[in-house]
Amino acid sequence: MARYGTVAIVGVGLIGGSIGLALRRRGLAEHVVGIGRRQSSLDKALAFETVDSVSLDLAEGVKGAEITVICTPVARIAQDVLTTAANCPTDALITDAGSIKGQIVDELAAATAQPECKGVKRLEKNEVHFIGSHPLAGGEKTGPQAAREDLFDGRVTIVTPTEANRSTETKRVSLFWQDLGSRVVCMSPEEHDAAVATVSHVPHVAASALAASTPKASLDLIGTGWLGTTRIAGGDVELWRQILTGNRQQVLSALAEYEAALAEFRTAIANENDEQLVELLQAGKDRRDAVGS
Amino acid sequence: MARYGTVAIVGVGLIGGSIGLALRRRGLAEHVVGIGRRQSSLDKALAFETVDSVSLDLAEGVKGAEITVICTPVARIAQDVLTTAANCPTDALITDAGSIKGQIVDELAAATAQPECKGVKRLEKNEVHFIGSHPLAGGEKTGPQAAREDLFDGRVTIVTPTEANRSTETKRVSLFWQDLGSRVVCMSPEEHDAAVATVSHVPHVAASALAASTPKASLDLIGTGWLGTTRIAGGDVELWRQILTGNRQQVLSALAEYEAALAEFRTAIANENDEQLVELLQAGKDRRDAVGS
Repeated sequence: MARYGTVAIVGVGLIGGSIGLALRRRGLAEHVVGIGRRQSSLDKALAFETVDSVSLDLAEGVKGAEITVICTPVARIAQDVLTTAANCPTDALITDAGSIKGQIVDELAAATAQPECKGVKRLEKNEVHFIGSHPLAGGEKTGPQAAREDLFDGRVTIVTPTEANRSTETKRVSLFWQDLGSRVVCMSPEEHDAAVATVSHVPHVAASALAASTPKASLDLIGTGWLGTTRIAGGDVELWRQILTGNRQQVLSALAEYEAALAEFRTAIANENDEQLVELLQAGKDRRDAVGS
Repeated sequence: MARYGTVAIVGVGLIGGSIGLALRRRGLAEHVVGIGRRQSSLDKALAFETVDSVSLDLAEGVKGAEITVICTPVARIAQDVLTTAANCPTDALITDAGSIKGQIVDELAAATAQPECKGVKRLEKNEVHFIGSHPLAGGEKTGPQAAREDLFDGRVTIVTPTEANRSTETKRVSLFWQDLGSRVVCMSPEEHDAAVATVSHVPHVAASALAASTPKASLDLIGTGWLGTTRIAGGDVELWRQILTGNRQQVLSALAEYEAALAEFRTAIANENDEQLVELLQAGKDRRDAVGS
Protein backbone atom coordinates (compact mmCIF):
# COMPACT_ATOMS: atom_id res chain seq x y z
CA MET A 1 0.00 0.00 0.00
CA ALA A 2 1.33 3.42 -0.95
CA ARG A 3 2.26 5.83 1.84
CA TYR A 4 0.15 8.63 0.38
CA GLY A 5 -3.25 8.64 -1.29
CA THR A 6 -3.65 11.39 -3.88
CA VAL A 7 -0.94 14.03 -4.13
CA ALA A 8 -1.61 17.17 -6.17
CA ILE A 9 1.23 19.08 -7.82
CA VAL A 10 0.46 22.62 -8.91
CA GLY A 11 2.95 23.64 -11.61
CA VAL A 12 4.52 20.72 -13.45
CA GLY A 13 7.95 22.11 -14.42
CA LEU A 14 11.34 20.91 -13.21
CA ILE A 15 10.49 20.86 -9.48
CA GLY A 16 6.86 19.71 -9.75
CA GLY A 17 7.76 17.12 -12.37
CA SER A 18 10.60 15.75 -10.26
CA ILE A 19 8.31 15.43 -7.24
CA GLY A 20 5.83 13.54 -9.40
CA LEU A 21 8.50 11.22 -10.81
CA ALA A 22 9.91 10.48 -7.35
CA LEU A 23 6.42 9.73 -5.96
CA ARG A 24 5.41 7.53 -8.87
CA ARG A 25 8.61 5.55 -9.46
CA ARG A 26 9.03 4.86 -5.75
CA GLY A 27 5.40 3.84 -5.32
CA LEU A 28 4.89 6.48 -2.65
CA ALA A 29 1.49 7.74 -3.83
CA GLU A 30 -1.66 6.04 -5.07
CA HIS A 31 -2.33 8.83 -7.49
CA VAL A 32 -0.47 11.98 -8.60
CA VAL A 33 -2.49 14.75 -10.23
CA GLY A 34 -0.69 17.53 -12.09
CA ILE A 35 -2.36 20.93 -12.22
CA GLY A 36 -1.32 23.69 -14.62
CA ARG A 37 -2.62 26.66 -16.55
CA ARG A 38 -1.53 25.56 -20.02
CA GLN A 39 -2.65 22.37 -21.68
CA SER A 40 0.73 22.13 -23.46
CA SER A 41 2.59 21.87 -20.13
CA LEU A 42 0.14 19.27 -18.86
CA ASP A 43 0.54 17.28 -22.07
CA LYS A 44 4.29 17.26 -21.54
CA ALA A 45 3.86 16.17 -17.92
CA LEU A 46 1.79 13.22 -19.11
CA ALA A 47 4.23 12.44 -21.92
CA PHE A 48 7.17 12.33 -19.47
CA GLU A 49 5.01 10.31 -17.05
CA THR A 50 5.62 12.70 -14.16
CA VAL A 51 1.93 12.55 -13.17
CA ASP A 52 -0.99 10.10 -13.46
CA SER A 53 -3.64 12.62 -14.48
CA VAL A 54 -3.89 16.34 -15.15
CA SER A 55 -6.26 19.25 -14.59
CA LEU A 56 -6.45 22.85 -15.77
CA ASP A 57 -8.69 23.69 -12.80
CA LEU A 58 -6.92 24.14 -9.47
CA ALA A 59 -10.10 23.97 -7.35
CA GLU A 60 -11.19 20.78 -9.07
CA GLY A 61 -7.71 19.21 -9.15
CA VAL A 62 -7.00 19.39 -5.41
CA LYS A 63 -10.38 17.98 -4.33
CA GLY A 64 -9.10 14.58 -3.34
CA ALA A 65 -5.51 15.48 -2.46
CA GLU A 66 -4.24 14.72 1.03
CA ILE A 67 -1.08 16.65 0.11
CA THR A 68 -0.81 19.52 -2.36
CA VAL A 69 2.58 20.93 -3.36
CA ILE A 70 2.47 24.41 -4.95
CA CYS A 71 5.34 24.70 -7.43
CA THR A 72 4.27 27.93 -9.14
CA PRO A 73 6.33 31.16 -9.29
CA VAL A 74 6.71 32.84 -5.88
CA ALA A 75 4.45 35.74 -6.80
CA ARG A 76 1.53 33.32 -7.31
CA ILE A 77 2.03 30.95 -4.39
CA ALA A 78 -0.11 32.64 -1.70
CA GLN A 79 -3.06 32.89 -4.04
CA ASP A 80 -2.70 29.22 -5.05
CA VAL A 81 -2.47 28.21 -1.37
CA LEU A 82 -5.78 29.98 -0.67
CA THR A 83 -7.56 28.35 -3.60
CA THR A 84 -6.19 24.97 -2.54
CA ALA A 85 -7.18 25.55 1.09
CA ALA A 86 -10.75 26.32 0.02
CA ASN A 87 -11.11 23.13 -2.01
CA CYS A 88 -8.91 20.35 -0.60
CA PRO A 89 -10.21 17.70 1.86
CA THR A 90 -10.32 18.36 5.60
CA ASP A 91 -6.98 17.74 7.35
CA ALA A 92 -5.15 18.00 4.03
CA LEU A 93 -1.62 19.38 3.99
CA ILE A 94 -0.49 22.17 1.66
CA THR A 95 3.14 23.04 1.09
CA ASP A 96 5.13 24.77 -1.64
CA ALA A 97 8.59 24.90 -3.22
CA GLY A 98 9.14 28.67 -3.40
CA SER A 99 12.57 30.27 -3.00
CA ILE A 100 11.35 32.83 -0.46
CA LYS A 101 9.07 32.21 2.48
CA GLY A 102 8.33 35.40 4.47
CA GLN A 103 6.43 37.07 1.65
CA ILE A 104 4.02 34.12 1.36
CA VAL A 105 3.33 34.18 5.10
CA ASP A 106 2.78 37.95 4.90
CA GLU A 107 0.42 37.63 1.94
CA LEU A 108 -1.58 34.91 3.73
CA ALA A 109 -1.75 37.08 6.87
CA ALA A 110 -2.99 39.99 4.78
CA ALA A 111 -5.68 37.75 3.32
CA THR A 112 -7.22 37.24 6.77
CA ALA A 113 -8.61 40.76 6.29
CA GLN A 114 -10.95 39.14 3.76
CA PRO A 115 -13.05 36.95 6.08
CA GLU A 116 -15.30 35.97 3.21
CA CYS A 117 -12.43 33.90 1.78
CA LYS A 118 -13.16 30.24 2.43
CA GLY A 119 -9.47 29.25 2.20
CA VAL A 120 -8.49 31.75 4.91
CA LYS A 121 -11.24 30.47 7.21
CA ARG A 122 -10.26 26.83 6.83
CA LEU A 123 -6.57 27.62 7.46
CA GLU A 124 -7.46 29.67 10.58
CA LYS A 125 -9.65 26.89 11.94
CA ASN A 126 -6.88 24.38 11.31
CA GLU A 127 -9.20 22.38 9.08
CA VAL A 128 -6.42 22.38 6.49
CA HIS A 129 -2.74 23.18 6.98
CA PHE A 130 -0.11 25.18 5.14
CA ILE A 131 3.61 24.94 5.94
CA GLY A 132 6.15 26.43 3.53
CA SER A 133 9.04 24.42 2.09
CA HIS A 134 12.05 25.18 -0.05
CA PRO A 135 13.89 22.27 -1.67
CA LEU A 136 17.45 23.44 -2.47
CA ALA A 137 17.49 21.61 -5.75
CA GLY A 138 17.21 22.60 -9.35
CA GLY A 139 19.56 23.36 -12.15
CA GLU A 140 20.02 25.34 -15.29
CA LYS A 141 17.55 23.22 -17.23
CA THR A 142 13.87 23.87 -16.67
CA GLY A 143 10.54 22.38 -17.72
CA PRO A 144 8.90 18.95 -17.35
CA GLN A 145 11.46 17.40 -19.73
CA ALA A 146 14.26 18.20 -17.22
CA ALA A 147 12.47 16.44 -14.34
CA ARG A 148 14.47 13.76 -12.52
CA GLU A 149 13.35 11.17 -9.99
CA ASP A 150 16.56 11.75 -7.97
CA LEU A 151 16.51 15.56 -8.00
CA PHE A 152 16.05 15.73 -4.22
CA ASP A 153 18.34 12.86 -3.25
CA GLY A 154 20.75 14.08 -0.59
CA ARG A 155 19.72 17.72 -1.11
CA VAL A 156 18.54 19.92 1.73
CA THR A 157 14.89 20.93 1.90
CA ILE A 158 14.12 23.74 4.32
CA VAL A 159 10.73 23.46 6.04
CA THR A 160 9.52 26.73 7.55
CA PRO A 161 6.76 26.37 10.16
CA THR A 162 5.26 29.44 11.82
CA GLU A 163 3.71 29.73 15.28
CA ALA A 164 0.35 28.92 13.70
CA ASN A 165 1.56 25.42 12.76
CA ARG A 166 1.35 22.40 15.02
CA SER A 167 4.31 20.07 15.30
CA THR A 168 2.33 17.12 13.91
CA GLU A 169 1.88 18.95 10.60
CA THR A 170 5.47 20.11 10.54
CA LYS A 171 6.45 16.48 10.97
CA ARG A 172 4.15 15.36 8.15
CA VAL A 173 5.68 17.89 5.74
CA SER A 174 9.21 16.96 6.80
CA LEU A 175 8.54 13.25 6.29
CA PHE A 176 7.13 13.96 2.84
CA TRP A 177 10.40 15.60 1.71
CA GLN A 178 12.43 12.88 3.38
CA ASP A 179 10.44 10.30 1.43
CA LEU A 180 11.55 12.14 -1.73
CA GLY A 181 15.19 11.74 -0.65
CA SER A 182 15.81 15.13 0.98
CA ARG A 183 17.59 16.00 4.17
CA VAL A 184 15.23 18.34 6.05
CA VAL A 185 16.25 21.45 8.01
CA CYS A 186 13.56 23.41 9.91
CA MET A 187 13.74 27.13 10.54
CA SER A 188 11.39 30.11 10.64
CA PRO A 189 10.44 31.85 7.39
CA GLU A 190 12.50 34.88 8.51
CA GLU A 191 15.60 32.79 9.27
CA HIS A 192 15.19 31.06 5.91
CA ASP A 193 14.98 34.32 4.00
CA ALA A 194 18.06 35.76 5.73
CA ALA A 195 20.08 32.61 5.02
CA VAL A 196 19.14 32.25 1.34
CA ALA A 197 19.80 35.96 0.81
CA THR A 198 23.45 35.21 1.66
CA VAL A 199 23.90 31.87 -0.13
CA SER A 200 21.69 32.39 -3.17
CA HIS A 201 20.22 35.85 -3.77
CA VAL A 202 23.34 37.98 -3.25
CA PRO A 203 25.48 35.50 -5.24
CA HIS A 204 23.03 35.99 -8.11
CA VAL A 205 23.34 39.77 -7.89
CA ALA A 206 27.15 39.44 -7.60
CA ALA A 207 27.33 37.25 -10.71
CA SER A 208 24.92 39.39 -12.70
CA ALA A 209 26.71 42.67 -11.88
CA LEU A 210 30.06 41.04 -12.69
CA ALA A 211 28.87 39.83 -16.08
CA ALA A 212 27.26 43.17 -16.90
CA SER A 213 30.31 45.20 -15.87
CA THR A 214 32.74 43.16 -18.00
CA PRO A 215 33.54 45.24 -21.11
CA LYS A 216 32.46 43.56 -24.33
CA ALA A 217 35.97 43.99 -25.72
CA SER A 218 37.36 41.78 -22.94
CA LEU A 219 35.04 38.84 -23.59
CA ASP A 220 37.58 37.33 -25.99
CA LEU A 221 39.90 36.82 -23.04
CA ILE A 222 37.58 35.10 -20.58
CA GLY A 223 38.58 31.78 -19.07
CA THR A 224 37.08 29.14 -16.82
CA GLY A 225 37.28 31.50 -13.80
CA TRP A 226 35.01 34.15 -15.26
CA LEU A 227 32.69 31.50 -16.73
CA GLY A 228 32.21 29.80 -13.37
CA THR A 229 31.85 32.99 -11.37
CA THR A 230 29.17 34.41 -13.68
CA ARG A 231 27.33 31.18 -14.64
CA ILE A 232 24.19 31.83 -12.57
CA ALA A 233 23.76 35.27 -14.21
CA GLY A 234 22.17 33.35 -17.10
CA GLY A 235 19.14 32.51 -14.92
CA ASP A 236 15.57 33.50 -15.71
CA VAL A 237 15.10 37.27 -15.33
CA GLU A 238 11.46 37.25 -14.20
CA LEU A 239 12.09 34.50 -11.65
CA TRP A 240 14.94 36.51 -10.15
CA ARG A 241 13.00 39.76 -10.19
CA GLN A 242 10.33 38.06 -8.08
CA ILE A 243 12.89 36.62 -5.67
CA LEU A 244 14.90 39.83 -5.22
CA THR A 245 11.84 42.03 -4.74
CA GLY A 246 10.02 39.45 -2.62
CA ASN A 247 12.99 39.20 -0.24
CA ARG A 248 13.91 42.87 -0.46
CA GLN A 249 14.99 43.63 3.11
CA GLN A 250 17.08 40.50 3.60
CA VAL A 251 18.72 40.93 0.19
CA LEU A 252 19.60 44.56 0.94
CA SER A 253 21.06 43.57 4.28
CA ALA A 254 23.18 40.73 2.83
CA LEU A 255 24.19 42.91 -0.12
CA ALA A 256 25.46 45.55 2.32
CA GLU A 257 27.66 42.89 3.93
CA TYR A 258 29.02 41.90 0.55
CA GLU A 259 29.69 45.50 -0.47
CA ALA A 260 31.52 46.04 2.82
CA ALA A 261 33.70 42.98 2.13
CA LEU A 262 34.53 44.34 -1.34
CA ALA A 263 35.35 47.75 0.13
CA GLU A 264 37.82 46.08 2.49
CA PHE A 265 39.57 44.54 -0.52
CA ARG A 266 39.58 47.89 -2.29
CA THR A 267 41.06 49.65 0.72
CA ALA A 268 43.76 47.02 1.23
CA ILE A 269 44.77 47.18 -2.45
CA ALA A 270 44.65 51.00 -2.62
CA ASN A 271 46.67 51.39 0.60
CA GLU A 272 49.21 48.79 -0.51
CA ASN A 273 48.39 46.96 2.72
CA ASP A 274 49.70 43.53 1.76
CA GLU A 275 49.18 42.07 5.20
CA GLN A 276 45.47 42.89 5.16
CA LEU A 277 45.13 41.75 1.55
CA VAL A 278 46.59 38.36 2.46
CA GLU A 279 44.19 38.11 5.40
CA LEU A 280 41.20 38.86 3.17
CA LEU A 281 42.27 36.40 0.47
CA GLN A 282 42.90 33.77 3.15
CA ALA A 283 39.47 34.35 4.74
CA GLY A 284 37.78 33.81 1.36
CA LYS A 285 39.88 30.72 0.66
CA ASP A 286 39.20 29.23 4.11
CA ARG A 287 35.45 29.69 3.80
CA ARG A 288 35.48 28.21 0.28
CA ASP A 289 37.79 25.32 1.08
CA ALA A 290 35.59 24.38 4.05
CA VAL A 291 32.78 23.18 1.78
CA GLY A 292 34.59 21.17 -0.91
CA SER A 293 34.14 21.44 -4.63
CA MET B 1 64.50 18.29 -37.96
CA ALA B 2 62.88 19.99 -34.94
CA ARG B 3 61.66 23.56 -35.33
CA TYR B 4 63.57 24.76 -32.26
CA GLY B 5 67.04 23.90 -30.93
CA THR B 6 67.25 24.12 -27.15
CA VAL B 7 64.33 25.63 -25.24
CA ALA B 8 64.79 26.53 -21.57
CA ILE B 9 61.85 26.53 -19.17
CA VAL B 10 62.34 28.39 -15.90
CA GLY B 11 59.86 27.06 -13.35
CA VAL B 12 58.61 23.55 -14.07
CA GLY B 13 55.10 23.60 -12.55
CA LEU B 14 51.80 23.29 -14.39
CA ILE B 15 52.53 25.90 -17.08
CA GLY B 16 56.23 25.18 -17.55
CA GLY B 17 55.67 21.45 -17.47
CA SER B 18 52.88 21.68 -20.03
CA ILE B 19 55.10 23.73 -22.36
CA GLY B 20 57.79 21.07 -22.01
CA LEU B 21 55.37 18.22 -22.69
CA ALA B 22 53.93 19.94 -25.76
CA LEU B 23 57.43 20.66 -27.15
CA ARG B 24 58.71 17.13 -26.55
CA ARG B 25 55.71 15.05 -27.57
CA ARG B 26 55.23 17.09 -30.74
CA GLY B 27 58.92 16.95 -31.64
CA LEU B 28 59.12 20.74 -31.71
CA ALA B 29 62.45 21.10 -29.87
CA GLU B 30 65.77 19.26 -30.04
CA HIS B 31 66.27 19.66 -26.33
CA VAL B 32 64.18 21.02 -23.44
CA VAL B 33 66.01 22.06 -20.27
CA GLY B 34 64.03 22.63 -17.09
CA ILE B 35 65.40 25.11 -14.57
CA GLY B 36 64.21 25.37 -10.99
CA ARG B 37 65.30 26.28 -7.48
CA ARG B 38 64.41 23.01 -5.78
CA GLN B 39 65.84 19.65 -6.75
CA SER B 40 62.57 17.98 -5.74
CA SER B 41 60.62 19.92 -8.39
CA LEU B 42 63.26 19.13 -11.02
CA ASP B 43 63.14 15.44 -10.08
CA LYS B 44 59.37 15.50 -10.62
CA ALA B 45 59.78 17.26 -13.98
CA LEU B 46 62.13 14.47 -15.07
CA ALA B 47 59.86 11.78 -13.66
CA PHE B 48 56.87 13.15 -15.60
CA GLU B 49 59.11 13.53 -18.67
CA THR B 50 58.21 17.18 -19.13
CA VAL B 51 61.89 18.08 -19.82
CA ASP B 52 65.02 16.34 -21.19
CA SER B 53 67.47 17.69 -18.62
CA VAL B 54 67.41 19.93 -15.57
CA SER B 55 69.50 22.59 -13.88
CA LEU B 56 69.42 24.38 -10.52
CA ASP B 57 71.50 27.22 -12.01
CA LEU B 58 69.58 29.72 -14.17
CA ALA B 59 72.71 31.32 -15.70
CA GLU B 60 74.12 27.92 -16.62
CA GLY B 61 70.79 26.45 -17.77
CA VAL B 62 69.96 29.09 -20.38
CA LYS B 63 73.42 29.11 -22.00
CA GLY B 64 72.40 27.22 -25.13
CA ALA B 65 68.72 28.20 -25.26
CA GLU B 66 67.41 29.96 -28.36
CA ILE B 67 64.13 30.45 -26.49
CA THR B 68 63.68 30.77 -22.73
CA VAL B 69 60.21 30.83 -21.16
CA ILE B 70 60.08 32.24 -17.62
CA CYS B 71 57.27 30.50 -15.71
CA THR B 72 58.10 31.74 -12.22
CA PRO B 73 55.77 33.79 -9.95
CA VAL B 74 55.15 37.32 -11.27
CA ALA B 75 57.18 38.97 -8.52
CA ARG B 76 60.32 37.10 -9.71
CA ILE B 77 59.93 37.36 -13.48
CA ALA B 78 61.83 40.62 -14.20
CA GLN B 79 64.82 39.42 -12.21
CA ASP B 80 64.82 36.07 -14.02
CA VAL B 81 64.55 37.86 -17.38
CA LEU B 82 67.69 39.90 -16.56
CA THR B 83 69.70 36.86 -15.50
CA THR B 84 68.59 35.03 -18.64
CA ALA B 85 69.41 38.04 -20.83
CA ALA B 86 72.93 38.15 -19.39
CA ASN B 87 73.62 34.49 -20.12
CA CYS B 88 71.63 33.27 -23.13
CA PRO B 89 73.06 33.15 -26.68
CA THR B 90 73.02 36.22 -28.93
CA ASP B 91 69.70 36.71 -30.74
CA ALA B 92 67.93 34.47 -28.24
CA LEU B 93 64.31 35.12 -27.39
CA ILE B 94 63.01 35.44 -23.83
CA THR B 95 59.33 35.37 -22.93
CA ASP B 96 57.28 34.56 -19.85
CA ALA B 97 53.88 33.29 -18.75
CA GLY B 98 53.01 35.83 -16.05
CA SER B 99 49.45 36.96 -15.36
CA ILE B 100 50.36 40.66 -15.37
CA LYS B 101 52.60 42.43 -17.86
CA GLY B 102 53.01 46.16 -17.07
CA GLN B 103 54.85 45.58 -13.80
CA ILE B 104 57.49 43.46 -15.53
CA VAL B 105 58.07 46.14 -18.18
CA ASP B 106 58.31 48.75 -15.41
CA GLU B 107 60.78 46.69 -13.40
CA LEU B 108 62.94 46.12 -16.50
CA ALA B 109 62.82 49.86 -17.27
CA ALA B 110 63.88 50.63 -13.69
CA ALA B 111 66.81 48.24 -14.09
CA THR B 112 68.29 50.38 -16.89
CA ALA B 113 69.37 52.69 -14.06
CA GLN B 114 71.93 49.98 -13.28
CA PRO B 115 74.12 50.18 -16.41
CA GLU B 116 76.53 47.66 -14.94
CA CYS B 117 73.90 44.95 -15.39
CA LYS B 118 74.90 42.83 -18.36
CA GLY B 119 71.34 41.64 -19.01
CA VAL B 120 70.05 45.22 -19.26
CA LYS B 121 72.83 46.12 -21.72
CA ARG B 122 72.18 43.17 -24.00
CA LEU B 123 68.40 43.87 -24.04
CA GLU B 124 69.03 47.54 -24.83
CA LYS B 125 71.40 46.70 -27.65
CA ASN B 126 68.88 44.21 -29.04
CA GLU B 127 71.44 41.42 -28.71
CA VAL B 128 68.75 39.41 -26.94
CA HIS B 129 64.99 40.02 -26.88
CA PHE B 130 62.25 39.97 -24.27
CA ILE B 131 58.55 40.05 -25.15
CA GLY B 132 55.97 39.25 -22.50
CA SER B 133 53.30 36.56 -22.93
CA HIS B 134 50.31 35.38 -20.97
CA PRO B 135 48.78 32.03 -21.87
CA LEU B 136 45.16 32.01 -20.61
CA ALA B 137 45.38 28.42 -19.51
CA GLY B 138 45.69 26.68 -16.22
CA GLY B 139 43.36 25.14 -13.75
CA GLU B 140 42.82 24.34 -10.14
CA LYS B 141 45.53 21.67 -10.10
CA THR B 142 49.13 22.84 -9.92
CA GLY B 143 52.61 21.32 -10.07
CA PRO B 144 54.50 19.22 -12.64
CA GLN B 145 52.16 16.27 -12.10
CA ALA B 146 49.24 18.34 -13.45
CA ALA B 147 51.10 19.20 -16.68
CA ARG B 148 49.26 18.36 -19.92
CA GLU B 149 50.52 18.34 -23.48
CA ASP B 150 47.23 19.89 -24.66
CA LEU B 151 46.95 22.61 -22.01
CA PHE B 152 47.27 25.38 -24.62
CA ASP B 153 45.21 23.80 -27.39
CA GLY B 154 42.63 26.30 -28.55
CA ARG B 155 43.35 28.65 -25.62
CA VAL B 156 44.24 32.29 -26.13
CA THR B 157 47.79 33.44 -25.42
CA ILE B 158 48.24 37.19 -25.20
CA VAL B 159 51.59 38.46 -26.51
CA THR B 160 52.46 41.96 -25.30
CA PRO B 161 55.17 43.72 -27.33
CA THR B 162 56.34 47.20 -26.37
CA GLU B 163 57.74 49.93 -28.61
CA ALA B 164 61.20 48.54 -27.90
CA ASN B 165 60.35 45.26 -29.68
CA ARG B 166 60.74 44.67 -33.39
CA SER B 167 57.99 42.94 -35.32
CA THR B 168 60.26 40.01 -36.27
CA GLU B 169 60.66 39.08 -32.61
CA THR B 170 56.97 39.58 -31.89
CA LYS B 171 56.29 37.19 -34.75
CA ARG B 172 58.77 34.63 -33.39
CA VAL B 173 57.11 34.66 -29.96
CA SER B 174 53.64 34.43 -31.49
CA LEU B 175 54.65 31.47 -33.66
CA PHE B 176 56.10 29.72 -30.61
CA TRP B 177 52.73 29.84 -28.78
CA GLN B 178 50.88 28.86 -31.94
CA ASP B 179 53.15 25.83 -32.23
CA LEU B 180 51.98 24.89 -28.72
CA GLY B 181 48.36 25.04 -29.92
CA SER B 182 47.41 28.56 -28.78
CA ARG B 183 45.44 31.23 -30.56
CA VAL B 184 47.56 34.41 -30.22
CA VAL B 185 46.21 37.91 -29.53
CA CYS B 186 48.64 40.86 -29.47
CA MET B 187 48.13 43.96 -27.35
CA SER B 188 50.21 46.36 -25.29
CA PRO B 189 51.10 45.43 -21.70
CA GLU B 190 48.76 48.22 -20.49
CA GLU B 191 45.83 46.99 -22.60
CA HIS B 192 46.49 43.47 -21.33
CA ASP B 193 46.48 44.51 -17.70
CA ALA B 194 43.24 46.47 -18.08
CA ALA B 195 41.53 43.54 -19.80
CA VAL B 196 42.60 40.84 -17.34
CA ALA B 197 41.65 43.09 -14.43
CA THR B 198 38.05 42.84 -15.69
CA VAL B 199 37.93 39.17 -16.70
CA SER B 200 40.19 37.62 -14.08
CA HIS B 201 41.37 39.81 -11.20
CA VAL B 202 38.07 41.47 -10.22
CA PRO B 203 36.21 38.13 -10.56
CA HIS B 204 38.72 36.71 -8.06
CA VAL B 205 38.07 39.56 -5.62
CA ALA B 206 34.30 39.21 -6.18
CA ALA B 207 34.40 35.47 -5.45
CA SER B 208 36.70 35.84 -2.44
CA ALA B 209 34.62 38.63 -0.86
CA LEU B 210 31.44 36.63 -1.50
CA ALA B 211 32.84 33.50 0.16
CA ALA B 212 34.20 35.48 3.12
CA SER B 213 30.96 37.41 3.67
CA THR B 214 28.78 34.28 3.73
CA PRO B 215 27.93 33.56 7.38
CA LYS B 216 29.25 30.22 8.59
CA ALA B 217 25.75 29.29 9.79
CA SER B 218 24.46 29.50 6.21
CA LEU B 219 27.05 27.13 4.72
CA ASP B 220 24.73 24.18 5.34
CA LEU B 221 22.35 25.65 2.78
CA ILE B 222 24.71 26.30 -0.13
CA GLY B 223 23.94 24.87 -3.54
CA THR B 224 25.58 24.65 -6.93
CA GLY B 225 25.08 28.40 -7.51
CA TRP B 226 27.16 29.49 -4.54
CA LEU B 227 29.74 26.76 -5.22
CA GLY B 228 30.24 27.90 -8.82
CA THR B 229 30.28 31.60 -8.06
CA THR B 230 32.91 31.25 -5.32
CA ARG B 231 35.02 28.41 -6.79
CA ILE B 232 38.05 30.56 -7.73
CA ALA B 233 38.24 31.94 -4.18
CA GLY B 234 40.08 28.69 -3.34
CA GLY B 235 43.09 29.84 -5.39
CA ASP B 236 46.60 30.30 -4.02
CA VAL B 237 46.73 33.31 -1.69
CA GLU B 238 50.32 34.37 -2.38
CA LEU B 239 49.85 34.10 -6.15
CA TRP B 240 46.79 36.35 -5.95
CA ARG B 241 48.46 38.81 -3.61
CA GLN B 242 51.18 39.26 -6.22
CA ILE B 243 48.67 39.68 -9.04
CA LEU B 244 46.39 42.14 -7.23
CA THR B 245 49.24 44.29 -5.95
CA GLY B 246 51.20 44.06 -9.21
CA ASN B 247 48.19 45.26 -11.21
CA ARG B 248 46.97 47.68 -8.55
CA GLN B 249 45.72 50.60 -10.66
CA GLN B 250 43.88 48.49 -13.23
CA VAL B 251 42.32 46.33 -10.52
CA LEU B 252 41.13 49.40 -8.60
CA SER B 253 39.64 50.86 -11.75
CA ALA B 254 37.81 47.64 -12.73
CA LEU B 255 36.72 47.11 -9.12
CA ALA B 256 35.16 50.58 -9.11
CA GLU B 257 33.12 49.60 -12.19
CA TYR B 258 31.98 46.44 -10.45
CA GLU B 259 31.04 48.27 -7.26
CA ALA B 260 29.06 50.78 -9.34
CA ALA B 261 27.17 47.92 -11.01
CA LEU B 262 26.34 46.45 -7.59
CA ALA B 263 25.20 49.84 -6.33
CA GLU B 264 22.79 50.06 -9.27
CA PHE B 265 21.28 46.74 -8.21
CA ARG B 266 21.05 47.92 -4.62
CA THR B 267 19.32 51.16 -5.63
CA ALA B 268 16.85 49.38 -7.89
CA ILE B 269 15.95 46.89 -5.15
CA ALA B 270 15.77 49.53 -2.41
CA ASN B 271 13.61 51.86 -4.52
CA GLU B 272 11.33 49.02 -5.59
CA ASN B 273 12.17 49.99 -9.16
CA ASP B 274 11.18 46.76 -10.87
CA GLU B 275 11.72 48.11 -14.34
CA GLN B 276 15.34 48.99 -13.64
CA LEU B 277 15.89 45.71 -11.80
CA VAL B 278 14.69 43.76 -14.84
CA GLU B 279 17.01 45.83 -17.07
CA LEU B 280 20.00 45.08 -14.84
CA LEU B 281 19.22 41.35 -14.62
CA GLN B 282 18.72 41.25 -18.39
CA ALA B 283 22.04 43.04 -19.03
CA GLY B 284 23.88 40.47 -16.90
CA LYS B 285 22.07 37.59 -18.59
CA ASP B 286 22.75 38.95 -22.10
CA ARG B 287 26.48 39.37 -21.42
CA ARG B 288 26.68 35.89 -19.89
CA ASP B 289 24.58 34.15 -22.54
CA ALA B 290 26.76 35.71 -25.27
CA VAL B 291 29.73 33.52 -24.36
CA GLY B 292 28.17 30.08 -23.89
CA SER B 293 28.72 27.73 -20.98
